[in-house]
Amino acid sequence: MDISHPAVHPAGIPPAEEAPPPARVRMKDWQGMPGTVGGLTLRVAQLGFAVVSFAVMVSIQDFSTVTAFCYLVAAMVLQSLWSFTLAIIDTYALLCKRSLRNSLLVSLFVIGDWVTGTLTLAAACSSAGITVLIDNDLGECAPNHCGKYEVAVAMTFLTWVFITISFFLTFWLLATR
Amino acid sequence: MDISHPAVHPAGIPPAEEAPPPARVRMKDWQGMPGTVGGLTLRVAQLGFAVVSFAVMVSIQDFSTVTAFCYLVAAMVLQSLWSFTLAIIDTYALLCKRSLRNSLLVSLFVIGDWVTGTLTLAAACSSAGITVLIDNDLGECAPNHCGKYEVAVAMTFLTWVFITISFFLTFWLLATR
Repeated sequence: MDISHPAVHPAGIPPAEEAPPPARVRMKDWQGMPGTVGGLTLRVAQLGFAVVSFAVMVSIQDFSTVTAFCYLVAAMVLQSLWSFTLAIIDTYALLCKRSLRNSLLVSLFVIGDWVTGTLTLAAACSSAGITVLIDNDLGECAPNHCGKYEVAVAMTFLTWVFITISFFLTFWLLATR
Repeated sequence: MDISHPAVHPAGIPPAEEAPPPARVRMKDWQGMPGTVGGLTLRVAQLGFAVVSFAVMVSIQDFSTVTAFCYLVAAMVLQSLWSFTLAIIDTYALLCKRSLRNSLLVSLFVIGDWVTGTLTLAAACSSAGITVLIDNDLGECAPNHCGKYEVAVAMTFLTWVFITISFFLTFWLLATR
């Protein structure tokens, strides 16, 4: 380079300008975390699959004779309420450009996601166990509604997949704050 | 040592003493994380409960007629192998004072804990669903082994509790590295 280095001359230094404020330190803003479009999408997916699972299960006339199926219905109601609430919060955060990075709020999201996720997986597995028992072990699919049971269980598993993604992202956010 | 230092040592400077090495930067070392006594205890507890669950289930003569019970046995074998391996690694780390804070290693622990934990919960829930079906819904406990089923399911749930604690601590370690 052809520039001279005038060493220590302070004279030429221009008067300090209004320095721009330092860029705000922002945490990694991964899609899927609370308050992002990805996060809202995950909540809507959870809500959708939970509602379908609930609807399929309650459409079976005698589902209430099996405890596990009643539990699945209850778990899906809880999951729907949770995902709906979080979807509302995410929408609010997106529209009003609010941050959801409050430590207490994120902890609450993590706990809620974990609890509902665990209950949803438990509901899916207990119902899957009984569906497999009726279908494979007893071979009594004809008088029962194996197809509908299977659809409800599959929808519950899909709900669980999406709530698990939400949980991991939110827990990561909490841990890396 | 009583050796003179000719040549290059400037006169007035005393011979360099053995300076203590700078304190090693250590991450938060919570009990329960890999390579701690708490971590080893968790692994031993998981292994113990998984082995008891496995033993109780295989002691039932016709458990293999129900798919979910076969799955529980398989899940308990996998869980036992995983917890045993991790217990060995923890023991090695404790005895040889090695750190298990390698990023790749911790990621592997997190994935393994999550996979085995999920499979264990799935096994517990599917078996619990069937046990409740036999006991409450069908009222056919007399010809079956409800007591043993319940013990096996309870042990599997306890295994899951301990693997979940391990998972959370290891995931926290991974995220806060």
